[in-house]
Amino acid sequence: MSWKTAITKVEPNKLTLRGYDLATLIGTASFAQMVYLLLMGEFPDEKTGQLVEAILVSSVDHGATPPSCLAARTVASCGVPLTTALAAGVMSIGRYHGGAIEDCMKTLARAAQAKREKGKSLPDIAEQTIAEAKAKGRRLSGFGHRIHTQDPRTVKLLELAKSLGLAGDGVAIAEAIAEAFQRKGKTLPLNVDGAIAALLFDLGIPPELGNAFFVISRLPGLVAHIHEEQTREKPMRVITPGDVEYDGKEAP
Amino acid sequence: MSWKTAITKVEPNKLTLRGYDLATLIGTASFAQMVYLLLMGEFPDEKTGQLVEAILVSSVDHGATPPSCLAARTVASCGVPLTTALAAGVMSIGRYHGGAIEDCMKTLARAAQAKREKGKSLPDIAEQTIAEAKAKGRRLSGFGHRIHTQDPRTVKLLELAKSLGLAGDGVAIAEAIAEAFQRKGKTLPLNVDGAIAALLFDLGIPPELGNAFFVISRLPGLVAHIHEEQTREKPMRVITPGDVEYDGKEAP
Amino acid sequence: MSWKTAITKVEPNKLTLRGYDLATLIGTASFAQMVYLLLMGEFPDEKTGQLVEAILVSSVDHGATPPSCLAARTVASCGVPLTTALAAGVMSIGRYHGGAIEDCMKTLARAAQAKREKGKSLPDIAEQTIAEAKAKGRRLSGFGHRIHTQDPRTVKLLELAKSLGLAGDGVAIAEAIAEAFQRKGKTLPLNVDGAIAALLFDLGIPPELGNAFFVISRLPGLVAHIHEEQTREKPMRVITPGDVEYDGKEAP
Amino acid sequence: MSWKTAITKVEPNKLTLRGYDLATLIGTASFAQMVYLLLMGEFPDEKTGQLVEAILVSSVDHGATPPSCLAARTVASCGVPLTTALAAGVMSIGRYHGGAIEDCMKTLARAAQAKREKGKSLPDIAEQTIAEAKAKGRRLSGFGHRIHTQDPRTVKLLELAKSLGLAGDGVAIAEAIAEAFQRKGKTLPLNVDGAIAALLFDLGIPPELGNAFFVISRLPGLVAHIHEEQTREKPMRVITPGDVEYDGKEAP
Repeated sequence: MSWKTAITKVEPNKLTLRGYDLATLIGTASFAQMVYLLLMGEFPDEKTGQLVEAILVSSVDHGATPPSCLAARTVASCGVPLTTALAAGVMSIGRYHGGAIEDCMKTLARAAQAKREKGKSLPDIAEQTIAEAKAKGRRLSGFGHRIHTQDPRTVKLLELAKSLGLAGDGVAIAEAIAEAFQRKGKTLPLNVDGAIAALLFDLGIPPELGNAFFVISRLPGLVAHIHEEQTREKPMRVITPGDVEYDGKEAP
Repeated sequence: MSWKTAITKVEPNKLTLRGYDLATLIGTASFAQMVYLLLMGEFPDEKTGQLVEAILVSSVDHGATPPSCLAARTVASCGVPLTTALAAGVMSIGRYHGGAIEDCMKTLARAAQAKREKGKSLPDIAEQTIAEAKAKGRRLSGFGHRIHTQDPRTVKLLELAKSLGLAGDGVAIAEAIAEAFQRKGKTLPLNVDGAIAALLFDLGIPPELGNAFFVISRLPGLVAHIHEEQTREKPMRVITPGDVEYDGKEAP
Repeated sequence: MSWKTAITKVEPNKLTLRGYDLATLIGTASFAQMVYLLLMGEFPDEKTGQLVEAILVSSVDHGATPPSCLAARTVASCGVPLTTALAAGVMSIGRYHGGAIEDCMKTLARAAQAKREKGKSLPDIAEQTIAEAKAKGRRLSGFGHRIHTQDPRTVKLLELAKSLGLAGDGVAIAEAIAEAFQRKGKTLPLNVDGAIAALLFDLGIPPELGNAFFVISRLPGLVAHIHEEQTREKPMRVITPGDVEYDGKEAP
Repeated sequence: MSWKTAITKVEPNKLTLRGYDLATLIGTASFAQMVYLLLMGEFPDEKTGQLVEAILVSSVDHGATPPSCLAARTVASCGVPLTTALAAGVMSIGRYHGGAIEDCMKTLARAAQAKREKGKSLPDIAEQTIAEAKAKGRRLSGFGHRIHTQDPRTVKLLELAKSLGLAGDGVAIAEAIAEAFQRKGKTLPLNVDGAIAALLFDLGIPPELGNAFFVISRLPGLVAHIHEEQTREKPMRVITPGDVEYDGKEAP
C-alpha cells in the first residue's frame, strides 16, 4: 500500500539526496550541481556544474515586461504574500513563455536523430528542419527575438559550452539552423531560449524538464520585482507595460 | 506617467542587472551571487556568495511530506503543466511553512537591538527572548524539529558562517537561545530555519525576504517531486503522506 | 493600437454585460443565467437557466478527498489567505479532475456527428464509440465511478433535462453508451461528469468550457473546506485522505 | 487518529451536504442557496437566498481592467490551461482587491456594537466611525469609487435588501456614513463593496468570508475574459490596461 520516492531519504539527523549525504554537500556543492543532482539523479562533474550554473545565471531576469513578471507584479499589487505573487509568475511559464526551450529541444532531438541515422551534413539537416517547420506553418522556437539581434547571453553560453568541451550535436545543429536562416536573408538568430535548449540537449536533459531550468533561473528576478512592487508602488495601481523606465545603477 | 524599476535595464543586445552587464556574469558569477545581487542590489564578495550558496544548497529538498511537496504532487496528479503544480508548491510557503525563517529573523533583530542598546550579555538576552515569547504564549520559531534532534544542516551552516568570518550577532544569539533551552532541559535545538535566519540576519537581509531564499532553494526539489509524480504514478491517485517509502540510492 | 473586449462595457454609473444593463439584472436574473450570459454571450431563457442552475448545484462539493479539496486544504494549512488556497484548488481542475466533462463532450460531439451524417441507430453509435475507445486503449470519460454505482446526481440531472425538453442527442447517446456497457456486463454507469457533459452538449456549450462550469460549481465547496481547515485544524498538520470522518448533520 | 469534516458525507449513491440530501436539492435549490448552505451550515430561507443571489449577480464582472482580470489574461496569454489562468485571477482577490468587503464588514461590526451598547444615534455612530478612521490615517473601505459616483449596483442591492426585509444595522450604518461624508462635502458614496459588506453583515456572515462571496461571484467573469483572451488574441501579447475598448453588444 506504500508509494515510493527515489529523491530524498529523511532519517533523524540525516538527509540523503539521490544517494548523497546533504550535510557533506553544504559548503562544497554549488546550487547548480544540486539542481542537476535532483533532476537527473546523478552528481554532475565540475564542468557540467559550471554549464548548468551559467544557464541558471543567464535567465535570472529580463526586466519588467515579460508576462511572468507582469503577472507577478499585478498579483503583488493586490496585497497578497510574496509567495502567492511568485506563484502567479511561476504558472505563467507555459507553452508560449519559456516553452520555446522545450520546443527547441524537441526540434534538436529530431534533427540529431536524422543526423545520426541518415548521416546527413549539418547544412542539410538545418535546411530540412526549416523546411519541415514551414510545411507545418510553424515558427521554429529558439530563433529570433523582438529586441536582441545578437543576444549577448547566447554568445556567452555557446562560448562556454565549447570551452568546457560540452557542446555536441545540439549546439552544432542550432548554429547550423541560424546560419541557414542568415543565408536566406532572415534575421532569426539563435536566441537565449534556443541556446539553453542546445546546451540542455547536449547535457542529456529530457525536453520536458527544459522549462524547469528556466523557472528555477527566473525565480530571483521575480522575487526582486515583487519586492520592488510591494515596497515602491501603491497597491492596486494600473500597470502599463510600455511605460516602465529603468532608474537603477548603470554599468560602469 | 511612467513607472520605474531599478532591477534590470533591457537594451538591444545588452542586459544590465543592478548595474552589472549580464554577459560578463555568465560563466563567472555563481547563481547564489545573482540571487544576492538581484535581491540586495549589490554584487556580493566571494565569501558572502559562498554563504548564500550554502543556504540555497541546504534546503533544496526535505522528502515527500512537507505540505509544499504534497500540494505540488496533488496538483501534479491532476494532469496540469509542471509549472502549474510548481506554483501550488510555491504558494504553500507561507506563515507556517518556511515562515519560521522570517519570524526568527525578527526575533533575532529585536534581541540584537536589545544587546546593542542595553549592553546585556548573550545568556541574558537569550533568557529574556524566551521569557517574552512565553509571556505572549508563542513558540519561538527556529527552534525544535519533529524529526531531527541535531539537524545536520544547521551544524554545517553555522560552521561555514564562522569559518568565513560572517557569523555575527544573529548566530551568537541563536546559539545562546538554543543553549538556554538546553539548560532548561528542553529539546529545542536550533533547526535549519533558525540557522538560515541567523545567517541571513548577519548578512543584512531584511526579514521579509527570508521566505524568498527558502523558496528559491526548494524549487529544484519541488520540480523533482512533480516530475517523479507525473512519470512514476497514476493520475488522480490518493496520496497518503505517511505511506511513502524511499527506494532511491543509498549513501556510500 | 487598442485591443477589444466584448464582455463588459464600463461607464460612469453604468455597467453593460453582453448588452444587458447589470442594474436591471440584480434581483431578477439568477447567477446561473449570468454564467450562461457571460460565457455564451446571450441571455438564456428560463428553462436553460434552470438547467444550468441544476448543473451548478450538482457539483458544489464531493467531500474532503478529491485532489482539488486536498490541494486547497494542504495549502490552507500553511497559513496563506483564503484566496491563495482557493487558487490551489482551482488549478487542480485539470485533465484528470473535471476534465472528464470536456473529454466526454468531445466524444458525444463525434458520436452525434456520426449519428447525423450516417443515420445510424443509437445502439450502433454507442457500440461504435465504445469500440473506437477500446481500439485506442482509452477509457471512455464520463462512465464509471469509484464510489457510486448509480450516481444520484446523474439521475436528477437527466430527469430535469428531459422534463424541461432540453435533452437532445447528447443525453440520448450518453444513455445509449451506458446501456451498451450494461449489455456487456460492465459496471460503467453514466457518472455526474458524463451527465453534465451530455447536458452542456445539448445546450450548445463548446467542450473547452466544460471544466469552467465544473470549477464555478465547485468553488463554494472549496471555500467551505478551506474555512473549515483554517478554523478547525492545527496549521501544518499531516492530512491523510483516508482518515477523514464526517461528523456533521445527518439528513432528516 | 482520524480527522473530521462537517461539510459533506459521501456514501455509495448518496451525498449529504450539511445534512441535506444533494439529490433533492438538484432542480429545486438555487446555486445561491447552496453557497449559503455550504458556508453557513444552514439552508437559507427564500428571501435570504434571493439576497445572496443578487450579491452574486452584482459582481460577476467589471470589465477587463481590474487586476484579477489582468492577471488572469496575462497568465492565459502564456498558453496555460483555463483553470491555471483562473487561479491567477482568484489569488489576486486580496487585501486591496475585494478586501474592501472584509474591511468594511469589520468597520460595520464595530459600529453596530457601539450602537447597541452605547445607544448612540446613527449620525453620531457615523461621525465617530469616520473620525476614528481619520485618527488612524486610514481610508474607510467601502466608500468612494474611481469611476462611479452613484454605483448602480449599490442602489439595487440596498433596495432589494430593504424590500425583502433583510436590511438591518449594517445597511443603516453604511448609509449613515455615506450621508455623513455628503454633509462634509466629500464624494465618497457607498460603493458596491460597501453595499455587499452591509448586506453580508446583516445576513450574519463572518467578515473573513466576505472575500469568498466576491470571488465566487467574479468567477464567471474571469472565465469569460480568459476564454476571450485565448480565442481572440495572440499569445504573449503586451496587455496595456488603458488601451482596451468595448466592441460588444449595446444595451437596447
